[in-house]
Formats: sequence, structure tokens, C-alpha cells
Amino acid sequence: MTVHIGVIGTGMIGQDHIRRLTDVVTGAEVVAVTDVDGARAAEVASGIGARALPTGQDVIADPLVDAVVVTSWGPTHAEYVLAAIEAGKYVFCEKPLATTAEDCLRIIEAEQTFGRRLVQVGFMRRYDAGYRAMKQLLDGGQLGHPLMMHCAHRNPTVPEAYHSAMAVQDTAVHEIDTIRWLLEEEIVSAQVIQPRRTANRFEHLADPQFMLFETESGVRVDLEVFVNCQFGYDIQCETVCEAGTVRLPDPADVIVKTGAVQRTGVLQDWKDRFGAAFDREFVEWIASIDDGRLAGPSAWDGYAAAVITDAGTEALHTQRVVSVRLKDRPDLYGS
Amino acid sequence: MTVHIGVIGTGMIGQDHIRRLTDVVTGAEVVAVTDVDGARAAEVASGIGARALPTGQDVIADPLVDAVVVTSWGPTHAEYVLAAIEAGKYVFCEKPLATTAEDCLRIIEAEQTFGRRLVQVGFMRRYDAGYRAMKQLLDGGQLGHPLMMHCAHRNPTVPEAYHSAMAVQDTAVHEIDTIRWLLEEEIVSAQVIQPRRTANRFEHLADPQFMLFETESGVRVDLEVFVNCQFGYDIQCETVCEAGTVRLPDPADVIVKTGAVQRTGVLQDWKDRFGAAFDREFVEWIASIDDGRLAGPSAWDGYAAAVITDAGTEALHTQRVVSVRLKDRPDLYGS
Amino acid sequence: MTVHIGVIGTGMIGQDHIRRLTDVVTGAEVVAVTDVDGARAAEVASGIGARALPTGQDVIADPLVDAVVVTSWGPTHAEYVLAAIEAGKYVFCEKPLATTAEDCLRIIEAEQTFGRRLVQVGFMRRYDAGYRAMKQLLDGGQLGHPLMMHCAHRNPTVPEAYHSAMAVQDTAVHEIDTIRWLLEEEIVSAQVIQPRRTANRFEHLADPQFMLFETESGVRVDLEVFVNCQFGYDIQCETVCEAGTVRLPDPADVIVKTGAVQRTGVLQDWKDRFGAAFDREFVEWIASIDDGRLAGPSAWDGYAAAVITDAGTEALHTQRVVSVRLKDRPDLYGS
Amino acid sequence: MTVHIGVIGTGMIGQDHIRRLTDVVTGAEVVAVTDVDGARAAEVASGIGARALPTGQDVIADPLVDAVVVTSWGPTHAEYVLAAIEAGKYVFCEKPLATTAEDCLRIIEAEQTFGRRLVQVGFMRRYDAGYRAMKQLLDGGQLGHPLMMHCAHRNPTVPEAYHSAMAVQDTAVHEIDTIRWLLEEEIVSAQVIQPRRTANRFEHLADPQFMLFETESGVRVDLEVFVNCQFGYDIQCETVCEAGTVRLPDPADVIVKTGAVQRTGVLQDWKDRFGAAFDREFVEWIASIDDGRLAGPSAWDGYAAAVITDAGTEALHTQRVVSVRLKDRPDLYGS
Repeated sequence: MTVHIGVIGTGMIGQDHIRRLTDVVTGAEVVAVTDVDGARAAEVASGIGARALPTGQDVIADPLVDAVVVTSWGPTHAEYVLAAIEAGKYVFCEKPLATTAEDCLRIIEAEQTFGRRLVQVGFMRRYDAGYRAMKQLLDGGQLGHPLMMHCAHRNPTVPEAYHSAMAVQDTAVHEIDTIRWLLEEEIVSAQVIQPRRTANRFEHLADPQFMLFETESGVRVDLEVFVNCQFGYDIQCETVCEAGTVRLPDPADVIVKTGAVQRTGVLQDWKDRFGAAFDREFVEWIASIDDGRLAGPSAWDGYAAAVITDAGTEALHTQRVVSVRLKDRPDLYGS
Repeated sequence: MTVHIGVIGTGMIGQDHIRRLTDVVTGAEVVAVTDVDGARAAEVASGIGARALPTGQDVIADPLVDAVVVTSWGPTHAEYVLAAIEAGKYVFCEKPLATTAEDCLRIIEAEQTFGRRLVQVGFMRRYDAGYRAMKQLLDGGQLGHPLMMHCAHRNPTVPEAYHSAMAVQDTAVHEIDTIRWLLEEEIVSAQVIQPRRTANRFEHLADPQFMLFETESGVRVDLEVFVNCQFGYDIQCETVCEAGTVRLPDPADVIVKTGAVQRTGVLQDWKDRFGAAFDREFVEWIASIDDGRLAGPSAWDGYAAAVITDAGTEALHTQRVVSVRLKDRPDLYGS
Repeated sequence: MTVHIGVIGTGMIGQDHIRRLTDVVTGAEVVAVTDVDGARAAEVASGIGARALPTGQDVIADPLVDAVVVTSWGPTHAEYVLAAIEAGKYVFCEKPLATTAEDCLRIIEAEQTFGRRLVQVGFMRRYDAGYRAMKQLLDGGQLGHPLMMHCAHRNPTVPEAYHSAMAVQDTAVHEIDTIRWLLEEEIVSAQVIQPRRTANRFEHLADPQFMLFETESGVRVDLEVFVNCQFGYDIQCETVCEAGTVRLPDPADVIVKTGAVQRTGVLQDWKDRFGAAFDREFVEWIASIDDGRLAGPSAWDGYAAAVITDAGTEALHTQRVVSVRLKDRPDLYGS
Repeated sequence: MTVHIGVIGTGMIGQDHIRRLTDVVTGAEVVAVTDVDGARAAEVASGIGARALPTGQDVIADPLVDAVVVTSWGPTHAEYVLAAIEAGKYVFCEKPLATTAEDCLRIIEAEQTFGRRLVQVGFMRRYDAGYRAMKQLLDGGQLGHPLMMHCAHRNPTVPEAYHSAMAVQDTAVHEIDTIRWLLEEEIVSAQVIQPRRTANRFEHLADPQFMLFETESGVRVDLEVFVNCQFGYDIQCETVCEAGTVRLPDPADVIVKTGAVQRTGVLQDWKDRFGAAFDREFVEWIASIDDGRLAGPSAWDGYAAAVITDAGTEALHTQRVVSVRLKDRPDLYGS
């Protein structure tokens, strides 16, 4: 059975997801697209034999569309997600779910009113093989309770438009979701420390930044965000437990010995690092729609990420420890 | 554009490829299947909405079938491949292309008569990311000319039906193709040495076996085949060149420190080790059919593998160095 | 030329150093020892053909003694070091140089009065091959300026007498010296965070603890101290610079594949981890005495460690960021 | 108690051992040296306060000399070793023990006549931490019986004087001893295969060469000897057993990420790779003299190495499998 998809937003990530839904994921077909740039939408649509519609609301309303993918500009996400819920359609929304915690709450309320989950948020790391092996091991309990996590999120460079708070909102947000998912508990505080700045950055940017999070049970997480590290796209995560540690592997690459060194390559792009995770994310999303039981990151996860990144942003500006205050979690999102 | 596939042989590997063509590869649809066990064929067909046909010839003849996948019992391969060529249809044949070099030659002749490539043989290692990175590096020339290759092919255990010559015909055949592909030259001799046998095997089996190959330019390849190594499915390959070496990585896994050791898991199954390569093999096969230009392992590669495994089998029985004598390569298969 | 050594304190570490000076280091001979336990001193002395003297002051005054090793109880260190300076003899003092910063200052003043360096403090990590390779690379400048360091100091278990502040004073003190030496700048603040406690500890102990240090130029250092980690003695250090990172290797061990895992051993004991560094420390100390130019960790380094561990201890008790206030560095100790 | 040493041959390796016996090993003192180049001997002697004597026989006869180290030109070894045995003095002889198997047998007979071991041969790999850990594991039996070994011995380059047979006699001889020691059985045949030659060599030299050995119980060992590999001094050894494999680690080095690669250094010199093993070799030799019980590589091991390298040399010239024929092992050398 084929799930017919409408895509709102045909920029880089939208096109990448369209390619994925067309060429990688079986059981899905993109039938309608839209974009603020109508010409771009038309071009993308013609490439896959889909229709280009004038607006996101048209895509959602289209009776041929079973499920919606929202990859438009962040500030528009909430509106489209709410409309999809109202239409009773599944909706996959790239992060952020909404640009404010209040809008996330409105989505949660709408979904509760509808009565079952329709929304999935694009936190793709939950689909990475390494993180999954780590979660399986943590869940198995052989290592005892987690006590600390040491993480690093490094990009080779960022464009000039990247500003310091984006290190929390756009970069660390991935670790924020991963921490919550791996540990199965909420984050209760955030802190941002600014080390000596690298010379390899635009003047306005604090880079690297070093973040600290605490969870309900007292697990402490440290996260280096270094977005001009020069050498590659490098994701590190080690969870230290009572009886041992578990660490993500570096991506496998051939091992070369030449010129007095042994070396392996370091990836340069997040699309290479998490390409398989993105694929799996959509494969499982489509399968869960077939099943009628969404299992991926929920609107609650999107809400929690919003509250925590807000706290992180405040922590960045105040250089203080900032508490995270979440509402009670509705039953729809588990206990 | 969807390529409609007929599958001959719905055993384990046939079913796995059907699942792949259905769930993983976009742009393909399995529309007809057959099997010597008609009930099994019917069951598989019904699971995917395809038709079960009485015979392989029926599948090939079916006007709805654009391309054929042959995953039946080895001795039947040649017949089906020849019939597909006669019908002018693309055919993907699992190894072996045929059980004798003579039958492989007949296929080559038929394909030449047809005038362009229709046949692809299932040597999936050419689609493995590690081997591909190795080939790219060798092709780049920075390491100079290859001089030696050290390989190992280890299985945790094999069933009682596995006999000593299968170490050449079923196991080493993968390295034989890989060597030819990586080095872009032919193998000219084979030798099989039998070390002390492991106690962990059925009485009739020589295990491990240690094979030596020589190529046209004098590259020497050694290959450990150890099919009851107990600890896992483990593939090693290092190419030693004039200016350095390049080695396959072990598959990435989380790194755990506990109980006085640091450890990573070792895979147990070839389907886990080469799952992504199988996927890519079919994705690229379907894409090359769309393009009308097959690029994967050819009938010539199937023929060469047959001649070399024959030489290897003779080497195993005689414990001597056996020369490999190939016909001249027809222009259809490059220079 | 043989340097004749007197050893004050023949407990475990004293005996270990005596063995080292006798069996490993050439050009040195232990000629006199003492201990609060006279019988133990006598036994140790007879084992190496040295004399047991009644007191540390006797050892220092002994005209046959060229240089003194102080491995007695920490609170007695300052007295012996000051006496050695007064006697104009070289003195190697295990950490701490003194139990208070004030006593360290008295030593510094005495050494300045004497006019050249006589004191070396036992920070042996400066002699570890891995740390030295890291320092060489950092000094070379190819990686740009250091920005962050991520460290971990893990012991399998500690005895009941170990209390929370020892994590700073006895454990982290090694990293404190290493940071100063690697970065060649002073630490300006310390903070201690207490994560969820492991169940595998005595009730009174906060374990693990997570420490943060800042240096003059703004480098931020994080240090996990986890003294009941169960799995081994594990030292990690990664320095993140503007153009790359450098990380200590794990100690080399044979790589074993068996039982579905690949594994290497993890050391259990600091004496195994730093045995070669201890050897080298004494080889170089003796050589520098021969040269008349001490080059190892100085009284200033001992003083700085005292001030920083005081700040760390206050940070631990107050859970606040505590500033480190050092006196100006005298010329005797470089700029 | 100090062992007084006389050194015959003060070339590079002789000087290195003198430095070691002087600066690294306690309990030993070099008191007399000689060399065919009397001026060199005199200079070396004056540097350590020893006497330079006219001939090797003078050194052996010197009543102040307790034990002799033979590091002269290979063809002179047998004469000095025999003289030392006659004088009843311990003698450490660098490889080869003698340049012919016959001379090795004369030494064995002389030692038997004397009635206990006096001779140790300089196979230093038995003192390398990695090989020792491997041996301990093999001896423990958890991995079952060894079945195969895969080895590589790579040098960055060799001088023009190096000729093809030296790959057996000077290079592979180290693996030959290591194999016998690790497996505790004799080698029964040798074969040498010559792959395509690297362009990076002098015209007269076959490089690389690929050697095969078989042991009494049927273990098969393959050894790549590649003495112009360009990239470094690289020693590999993996032993494949019935229940798993064990492999030497690469030497530990800091791990650097920069410029899109992760890299560690590769050593360039055997003195760096086996420096610690050489040190330990002499420490244990001196200790065993103190004990009166030599435990290191014996004259029998030197004899076996001579017979096997003879077979290997014949194999190199004939390109055939050559059998190794050893005399019965005298009781003096264990069973």
C-alpha cells in the first residue's frame, strides 16, 4: 500500500527528503509539493511527476495527500502542523516543531483533542546505528545506571549567518533530543560556558561553546559545540555508567598506512554522517503509518526540545545555570 | 519508471532479494515468481501481490516481465540465463553464473550474438563501501602499484553438508571476484594449502584452508578460508602497494569498557556484514537498466570465476599450483 | 658518577622508588633510608645494603648522601624539603610538596635564597610517552592554540578511607599539573559538579565528580574523576585546538577476537599505566643532577598545585566557581 | 652484585648494547671492549672508563670479565662463543650464533661438554610486551590450538648492500625464532614466493618476498618481508587458533584529527619499535646470570635458526618447498 505524501517546502532539506521518499523508501510517493518560491516548487514537482500547489494549506487539504512533510521555514512549521492535525493527516515536521514553546503546546493540545498521535518530529539521530546500539546496551542494564555523558558536535565551518545562539537552537538541539531519548528522563537545567574563541570564525561568533545539562536523576551531560573545528563533521558521545562506559564508534573507513602515518578519513558533511539514519527515519515513518502507530519522536519531544533550547539560549546570554520547566506530560505521550 | 521483475527461485536468497526489490529498492516491482516448490512460490507471490508461474521459462516469457532474477539451484542457472538472453531481457544471476566454464562460455557467446550486455552476476562485494573506498584509493595511484593482498574469509560455523571444495567454489569465489575487480587484471594460478585442522568441524572437512593466487602482473594474494572460526563472520583484506597499504575497516560498533576489557561486537552473519552492499547492488542494477547500460559484474566475470574456481578445486585435490587458462576476452567486456 | 641517595619514608611508594633507583636507574645508589617504623626501615635497608638511620634529619645530614627522596607522610614533606635546601642537597619530593600553600611558599623562598633549583616534585605524567607526544605536537603549533581539554581519571575502586575532597587533592592533582605543563599557562578558576552517585561506593563518598578549570587565556578544561568505575584504571585526555584535536592513546595490548567480540585488556593499576613514566622520571632526575640543572616539576609547580587544589576543595564544598590566586612567579622558575 | 662485561665488537649495535649495559641495566658494568678498529675500541672504552684490549680472545681471557657480549662481524661469532664456553664464561651473542649450522652444532657440543647453559642468543622479540602477551594467551589455552600465523616484517628502506637472501637470513630470522618460541614446536619446511617487485628498490633485489613455513603439528605461517615499504618499520603478527585470533597491537601513539583525517604516527626504526625489548633482554640476561640459570634464547635456538634460514635460502634460490632437518634436541635444551 502506497502512502501519498505532500511536501511543504522544497529547499535543500525538502528536496533531499523528496529524493529519499522517491528513490530510497518504498511504499511512498510524493504527489504534491509547494514552496514560497513557486517556480522552484514547479521544477521539483515536474522532476517526480507530482503536482505543484499554491500553498501549504492546499497541500494539506488535497484529498490525494495521505501524509504531510513540513520542511518549510521554521516560523511556518506550527501553522502547517496544526492544519494537518485538524485535517486528521499524519505530519512529519523537520525540527523545530515550532519556534516557541507556546506553539508546541498548542500542537500538543490539538493532538490530544484529536485523540491519537499524528505528529513526528525529525530528530534523525534516533535512527543512527551507533546510537541505537548504545541505547540497546543502556536499556539492557548490564552497565548499571548512567551517570554522565560526554558529547561533542563539531562542524568543519559554518556560514556567516550562523550566530552564537544557533549553537543551542540548531546544533545542540540534536544532542538535547538524543540525551532525553537515551536516558529516558527529562533535562532539568542548562548552562553554557564560552571557552577561548578560535581564530577561525566570523567576528560575531562565540565558538566553541561548552554546554552542561542535568537530568532529573542527576545525570550530568557535557557537550562541546565547535562549529569551525576545520577538520571535519565529528560527532562524539560517551555514556559513563556505574559498571562501564559505552562510546559511539567513528564511521568506518579504510585504514591507510603511507608516508609515516596510519590514517582514516574524517567525514566533512552531516549528510554523509547521518545519511543512513535519515533513510531509516523515513522507512520507519512510512511503515508506522501503514501500522497506524507512530513510534518516532513526538510532539512532546518537539515541545521539550523547544523549552530546553529556550533555557539554553537564556543560559548562553546570562552565563548562568538556567532551570528547565516543563508542563506535565500528557498520557498520550507515555509516562 | 518501474522495472517489472520476475524471480526464478524463491528459496532463502530468492526471498531476501524479493524483499529487497519490494521494500528497499524503489523503481522495481516483482510481478512474477516461480519455484520448484510450487506451494512456496504461491505463498511468496501472494505476499507481494505477484503471480506464481509454473516454470522459469514461463517467467522469462511473461510479457509483463522486463527483467529476470535467477536465484534457483546452481545447476539450473545457465539454462535460465540463456533463455533470458534469447528473450532479450536483462537477467541478474546469483553466483555461479553456471556450474561449468563451458556453460559460461555459451552464455558469453549468446550475449555477444545479442550484441550488448544483458547479464549481471551477483558479486555483491563490489558494492561494499569499504571495498569501494579501497578501489578508489588504488585507482587513484597514490600508493603505487599493488604487490600483495592479504585476505581472510571467516564464518563462525558451517553445516555438515559443507565439504572442502566448497571453500573454493562457494566461499573463496567472492575474494576471487574481488581480487580481479580491485586489481583489474586476471588471476593466472591458484594453490591451496591445508594447515592443521581445527577440532571444531565435521570429520570430512579440511578447515581452515589457505589459498594463494597470482595475477598477470605478479601480484600475490593469500587468502585464509576458515569456516568454523567460532567467533564470527569476519572479512579481512589488506592490499600492499609500493608506497603504502590499505586495509578494510572492521564494521563500526559501539565501544564498551567493562569488566577489565574494552570490546566491540563481531558480526555473526554475512547478511549483516554485506546487507548494505546487497541493497546497493540492486539499487544500481535497477538504475543501470533504466539507463540501458549495465555496469555490474558481467558474464565474463562469471566465466572467469568459474575457470578460477575450477583451477582452485584442482589445486585443492592435487595440492599443487594450478594454472588458470582463460579464453581471450571479447570486446563486449572491455579490454 | 654515582649519585648517592637517601630515602625518607619506606612505605609502598618509597619502596617502589628504592627498587627503581636500585634496579632500573643506573648512576644512582640508595645509601641511607629512614622511616617512622624503624623495623621496616631496617629491613628495607638490609635488602639493598644501605644503612637505616633514625630520622629524616639524619638522612639529610648524612655526608654520604648527595640527594634526598621524600616519600614520607604528606604533612612531613615541607620540613624535610626545607632541611634539604638548607643542607644544599637536591631533593625529590613526592606530591604534595607541602600540605599548605603557605609551606610551599616557604620552600620557594628558601630555594630563592639558596639561589638555584634543588627541589623536584613527583608529577610523573610529564614523563609519559603519550603526554609528551601531545606536548610536542601542541608546542609545534600546527594545531593552532588549544581551546578546550577533555579529561577523565578513572580508578576501578578506592578504599573506604578515600573521601570526596581527595578526588581533588590526590586524584585531580595529576591533571592539574598536566594541564599547566601542557598549556604553559596558569589555571585561574575551578569548579566541581557532582553528578548522580554510583551505587558502587562507600556511603560517604561523592563519586563520580566532574571538574571544570579555566586558564589565563580562556582554555576550558573538563575532568571526570570517577574512582569506583569498576572496569579499570583509565586515563583519557583530548586537547581541542583551533585546527584539530590530539588525544592520548589507550595503552597498547594484544587484540583478541573470540566469543563474538573483539577485545583488548584495560589496565587495573596506576603502577602499570605509569610505570615507564616513573622510571623515566628518575632516570632524568639523576641525569639532571649530574648536569647540575634540574628540569623537572619545580617547587613553583608544587605551590601552584597546592593553591589550585585548595581552590578545588573550596569549590567542592561550596559548589561554586572559585578563583585561583597565585603570587607572582619568581624569576627562578622562568617566565 | 655487579656483573662485569667484556664486549667484542664496538660497531653500531655493540655501542648500543654498551650504552644499554651502562645507562639502562643496573647490576652490570662494561669493563673491557675490543674491535677490529682499535681506535674505535679505544674511543668507546674511554667514554665509559673501560679498557680497550687488542683482541676478542683477550677480552674472554681477562680475569676481570665475568660475561662476554659478542657483537662483532657474524663470521667471527662462533670462534668467540666457543672460546667463552671454554673459559666457562657466560656469553651473549647477537644473531647469528654462527654463520653455518655446523658451527652452531660445535657450540652445542661444547656447551653440553661444559654441562650447563652459558650461551644466550640475541632474539630480542621474546622480550617485547606484545609478543609476550600473545604467548601468555596462547599458553593459557583459551583460544585452542594455533592453526595459522599471518606475519609481516616491513622496513622503510634498506641500503644497497642488502641482497635478496638477507630477507631470510637477517630479516625473517626474527620471525623464525618468534614462531618457534610462540608455538613451542619446530619448523619443518620453508618456501619463498616472489611477488611483483616494487619499483622502490635497487635493481638486484627481490622485494617484497612472501615466505611460508610449516611446523611439526601442521601450523602454517605466512610472512611478508617488504624491506622498501616506504611508510615505516611495521611488524604485524596474528595467530589464528581454533577458538579465536590474537594480534599484535600497533605501537601506541597520540591520535590526531586534522585536515580531514584521523592519524597516528608509524615508527621508522627498529630501535624505536624494539627499544624496550632490548632493554628487557639485557635486564633479564643480567638477572639470570645472577641466578645462575639462563632462560633466554639458547644455542639450540641459534642452531635451529641457522638450519631454517639455510632451508629458507635454498627455498629462495630454488623457488621450491625445502624441508628443514634438525638433529635431535639434546636434553640440555629441554624437551
